[in-house]
Amino acid sequence: MITVAIVGYGYWGKNLVRNFFNHSECVLHTVVDGDAAKLTPLQKQFPTVKTSTRYEDVLQNSSINAVVIATPVHSHYALAKAALLAGKHVLVEKPMTSTLREAEELIELALQRNLVIMPDHTFLYTGAVQKMKSMIDADEIGKIKYLDSTRINLGLFQSDVNVLWDLAPHDISICNYLVNKKPYSIQATGISHTGNDIENIAYLTMNFESDLIAHFNCSWTSPVKIRQMLIGGEKKMILFNDMEPTEKIKVYDTGYSVKSDDDKTRMLVDYRTGDIYVPKLPLHEALYAMATDFILAIRDGKKPVSNDLLGLEVVRILEASQQSIKQGGKEVKL
Amino acid sequence: MITVAIVGYGYWGKNLVRNFFNHSECVLHTVVDGDAAKLTPLQKQFPTVKTSTRYEDVLQNSSINAVVIATPVHSHYALAKAALLAGKHVLVEKPMTSTLREAEELIELALQRNLVIMPDHTFLYTGAVQKMKSMIDADEIGKIKYLDSTRINLGLFQSDVNVLWDLAPHDISICNYLVNKKPYSIQATGISHTGNDIENIAYLTMNFESDLIAHFNCSWTSPVKIRQMLIGGEKKMILFNDMEPTEKIKVYDTGYSVKSDDDKTRMLVDYRTGDIYVPKLPLHEALYAMATDFILAIRDGKKPVSNDLLGLEVVRILEASQQSIKQGGKEVKL
Amino acid sequence: MITVAIVGYGYWGKNLVRNFFNHSECVLHTVVDGDAAKLTPLQKQFPTVKTSTRYEDVLQNSSINAVVIATPVHSHYALAKAALLAGKHVLVEKPMTSTLREAEELIELALQRNLVIMPDHTFLYTGAVQKMKSMIDADEIGKIKYLDSTRINLGLFQSDVNVLWDLAPHDISICNYLVNKKPYSIQATGISHTGNDIENIAYLTMNFESDLIAHFNCSWTSPVKIRQMLIGGEKKMILFNDMEPTEKIKVYDTGYSVKSDDDKTRMLVDYRTGDIYVPKLPLHEALYAMATDFILAIRDGKKPVSNDLLGLEVVRILEASQQSIKQGGKEVKL
Amino acid sequence: MITVAIVGYGYWGKNLVRNFFNHSECVLHTVVDGDAAKLTPLQKQFPTVKTSTRYEDVLQNSSINAVVIATPVHSHYALAKAALLAGKHVLVEKPMTSTLREAEELIELALQRNLVIMPDHTFLYTGAVQKMKSMIDADEIGKIKYLDSTRINLGLFQSDVNVLWDLAPHDISICNYLVNKKPYSIQATGISHTGNDIENIAYLTMNFESDLIAHFNCSWTSPVKIRQMLIGGEKKMILFNDMEPTEKIKVYDTGYSVKSDDDKTRMLVDYRTGDIYVPKLPLHEALYAMATDFILAIRDGKKPVSNDLLGLEVVRILEASQQSIKQGGKEVKL
Repeated sequence: MITVAIVGYGYWGKNLVRNFFNHSECVLHTVVDGDAAKLTPLQKQFPTVKTSTRYEDVLQNSSINAVVIATPVHSHYALAKAALLAGKHVLVEKPMTSTLREAEELIELALQRNLVIMPDHTFLYTGAVQKMKSMIDADEIGKIKYLDSTRINLGLFQSDVNVLWDLAPHDISICNYLVNKKPYSIQATGISHTGNDIENIAYLTMNFESDLIAHFNCSWTSPVKIRQMLIGGEKKMILFNDMEPTEKIKVYDTGYSVKSDDDKTRMLVDYRTGDIYVPKLPLHEALYAMATDFILAIRDGKKPVSNDLLGLEVVRILEASQQSIKQGGKEVKL
Repeated sequence: MITVAIVGYGYWGKNLVRNFFNHSECVLHTVVDGDAAKLTPLQKQFPTVKTSTRYEDVLQNSSINAVVIATPVHSHYALAKAALLAGKHVLVEKPMTSTLREAEELIELALQRNLVIMPDHTFLYTGAVQKMKSMIDADEIGKIKYLDSTRINLGLFQSDVNVLWDLAPHDISICNYLVNKKPYSIQATGISHTGNDIENIAYLTMNFESDLIAHFNCSWTSPVKIRQMLIGGEKKMILFNDMEPTEKIKVYDTGYSVKSDDDKTRMLVDYRTGDIYVPKLPLHEALYAMATDFILAIRDGKKPVSNDLLGLEVVRILEASQQSIKQGGKEVKL
Repeated sequence: MITVAIVGYGYWGKNLVRNFFNHSECVLHTVVDGDAAKLTPLQKQFPTVKTSTRYEDVLQNSSINAVVIATPVHSHYALAKAALLAGKHVLVEKPMTSTLREAEELIELALQRNLVIMPDHTFLYTGAVQKMKSMIDADEIGKIKYLDSTRINLGLFQSDVNVLWDLAPHDISICNYLVNKKPYSIQATGISHTGNDIENIAYLTMNFESDLIAHFNCSWTSPVKIRQMLIGGEKKMILFNDMEPTEKIKVYDTGYSVKSDDDKTRMLVDYRTGDIYVPKLPLHEALYAMATDFILAIRDGKKPVSNDLLGLEVVRILEASQQSIKQGGKEVKL
Repeated sequence: MITVAIVGYGYWGKNLVRNFFNHSECVLHTVVDGDAAKLTPLQKQFPTVKTSTRYEDVLQNSSINAVVIATPVHSHYALAKAALLAGKHVLVEKPMTSTLREAEELIELALQRNLVIMPDHTFLYTGAVQKMKSMIDADEIGKIKYLDSTRINLGLFQSDVNVLWDLAPHDISICNYLVNKKPYSIQATGISHTGNDIENIAYLTMNFESDLIAHFNCSWTSPVKIRQMLIGGEKKMILFNDMEPTEKIKVYDTGYSVKSDDDKTRMLVDYRTGDIYVPKLPLHEALYAMATDFILAIRDGKKPVSNDLLGLEVVRILEASQQSIKQGGKEVKL
């Protein structure tokens, strides 16, 4: 049985606590948060779980096998490194670290010590992403030509990372997982309305070999919440609207065949050429599935869906996007 | 009474014919199209309107005061120039010309001859844009901080201009009209899936002084039709969804106040802080209002909403965007 | 070639004129309306069509074969009867007549004179209804168990007939066409907010043998326009939302199996048990197809989809519903 | 401090446990369920709460002041009566009882013993209903003319009560609370597809003096979940769509003025005559507010929003609706 400690009892920490507490394959031993006041309701609701304001209590407790880190991004590296050095497996919130160098170091360290380091890209475990993955792998969609995502709402402003570091990890990880390709270059633009040089609106374009383009629109300052991704394949196209309660995924039997350049007149393309199919998605909590994946990685050496190298790629692209924004949208080769 | 000829009887030409034919302040004299077959149904439906396959018939007819050009973009310049040289006022489909140089030349020529040259940015005359303009001018929205537009569908592929030239004129002209500012630089990225180097998906970012950013997402290859623009002001935010039959504009009493950088923790911003207001929009046909504006410009010297300089700015930005795309998204100063 | 006259140039009359004028299989000879002012724009747009304010001009013109009646309901009977007596085929707006007796008389008269009398239930010719009909006939939906329609908006108040006579003909005719069964009884309730005893809100239930129930909710006094019909079959269920621009029909692979009554506990039924399928619908104008059906009925003796007996059933149910409302919702046997 | 026991640990029981456990003004002492297996996860999550499979343990424990009953409807009466006889205050799930007689008896008994008996119509405590109530009470909506509700989904089939008993209590209680009037008669129709004479689809019309009509459409057999209520006032109209995540209430500045009956022609009413207003609703859990109301009723003698007489009216209408259905939709006077 894996024994787990969770560090950070904020919004996401609560979800982690609920899922690891209820998980049949592990024991939630301790929850750490620097703010003792946050831990009081936890103690009432989960009296069997220990609480502490000191991370050392976790590091020094040899009965704890694994540490789950749900703190602000800038603290991930130090906390994860300390856990690995203490011989514990690590699950760390996305994005894995603030810099590519840090992510590489953690992965190297885990490898040396034969420990699991796993980023928490929970979105990959949702029924919607799993369904899209299976359709793409079964070649129902055809070669992917574009991926276009809008992820905007009136959201949490963060003071240590910009909106891309906050929201784009979802899109980058989904893109990486679905198309299984790495971009050769990226560009990003954005604006900071806060005077602190931290963009609250940003746009990221990822360029791939072989006719694929991906574009992500991220904002903390939209009056409406939009979570929408379009995926265009040679055979079919997918609209993934995560705000829909039941019809999250629509598969359009739609395509566009292009005539030769000789013809100088317009080519009329019908607005919707075929039927639409809305697959039923499994109802499960993605976070629980992610927790299981972490446990199986520790116990059985299974490679998790949300694995270290995928997390590394996400950080690589985020770091490059920041360089691009600061250079006026300059293309950055990866 | 203004006497009008229309050149080009395609999709938009039909709308122009209907509106100029029914307009109380002008007479529709002739419709020209190179394809005689297209003119047959016109003759049946409008037996009082002359038809011709030769543009010279219009140029040489001194009873025709004004020419309306609704042909592919690459032909705008030559047709408009000929009309101006023949002493006729000109209304030309958006975008005005294929190059900035051509637009400047036409404007110069019209000025010399004391003729009207007007681009047809019909969208500016819609109830929705007029309502947004009046709210912004009345300072109900506050200083505009961002404008974000998505204009995608499975649309007409054109073989002479890319998707930005086709769709972005709407967004650029609306942005120019609403905020009354010019960008200092732009960036654009995109992809061509047709092998002819004409982008069918493209993204354009416009950078302005004073904290404003505009971003346009244009595609001919989306399975769903989206026409959505978000406008964020310091006081309120607007969602303009042109696909909504009646509730096209929603005004959100929403804002975000940002705390100082000292605070290193997250700032929680509520998803929707105030009420929403959905103004009733006037029901009128925008194209009829545009036709009226053209007639009044000729007759009374009124400066049209969709005027030559606005049309020129649109072409300037389109030309720059093409340069940017071809240089891998490089920032182009204007 | 069939030569047609249209009587009544109101909202629907304009649509009829456009479709019969453009129809390849007939000639639109004359349009009659008592209000000469309404005919002026018609003369401008269709100079080849004669106009008149006198119905006699049509009746006495032997070159006219067929009369299309698009006037208020209370005048249908007299106008149709006169046309039949003058030897002309008749197409009459829905509902066919104000009373069952009148409808029966017209049908009898047409039969005697070997003329076509056809009600205009245009809705039956839409791509959506045709698609549903073909799926039901192919037994894809299974035995129909319920049909539930909401047809409400801030609509035209009529002073001669209540909201059921105005709106329910659509639902009753669709129901009759799709399930091909007649109800054995109906009930209706409603209210008049106008002081003239003409209901502006009304509800109609139709009871069928064999487990089928149909319910129609009609209102002229809703702030939103809703056109929604649910059809539940033993195999699948259909949602027909006519306000959707493209996805009018959704077919749910959904069912409910019911356990025996012994079990006194709740039975959990999943909210959506299967995939959803959104068929592509043909793009055609229903009114044109209806006009064709009328012409073929005259020319070839083809039985129209919207035929006299279907129109008669609609009037029978409307008459019964009025009796029911006036008796406090009493069940009326048919 | 009030000490509470909860009887029935099903779907709703879990919500009750969470809210009473976390409530600052009471102690959750015991949870009873006949099925011991259901209580195991409760013991793990709430180790301080006692569990039992015997209701007697609650009745005989003098430290328990109040009993919350969340069992199937047919058991409400016996359980509530026993609790009252044991001197305990009672909160009982809606509908209060299976018959009017039972509800009257419980209210009488509570009165004699000076105990609180309160039905749990939680919906009345939602932000949406509270907002509508305050607008109506402030006369912003005007005199209410109609209330039209659709509450359908693929839901829980119950084997002891029909769909009206299951779903209509929400609508009837909201109607009663908002308009503060009692209907003089009702009619209901419906159908049972299960062979057990328990309707899974039913329609209820409530007739009021003074021009008000209410109609409820309830179904367990819809492929889509609809929770929509239209409320038409003389000044404004409200659309309450409970499936909307944030814009649950839309207030339409819409009305219809009716011309005199003399005029035999149609009166054109614009589809939407004014602006729409979407008020921000407070974010709170309705169930917690209901729990507070129960506690204050016990402690301070406050009359709850969801009070015994309102609960009685709901049962009166449900009982009458059942009579009406079984008599073919006959009007039942109240």
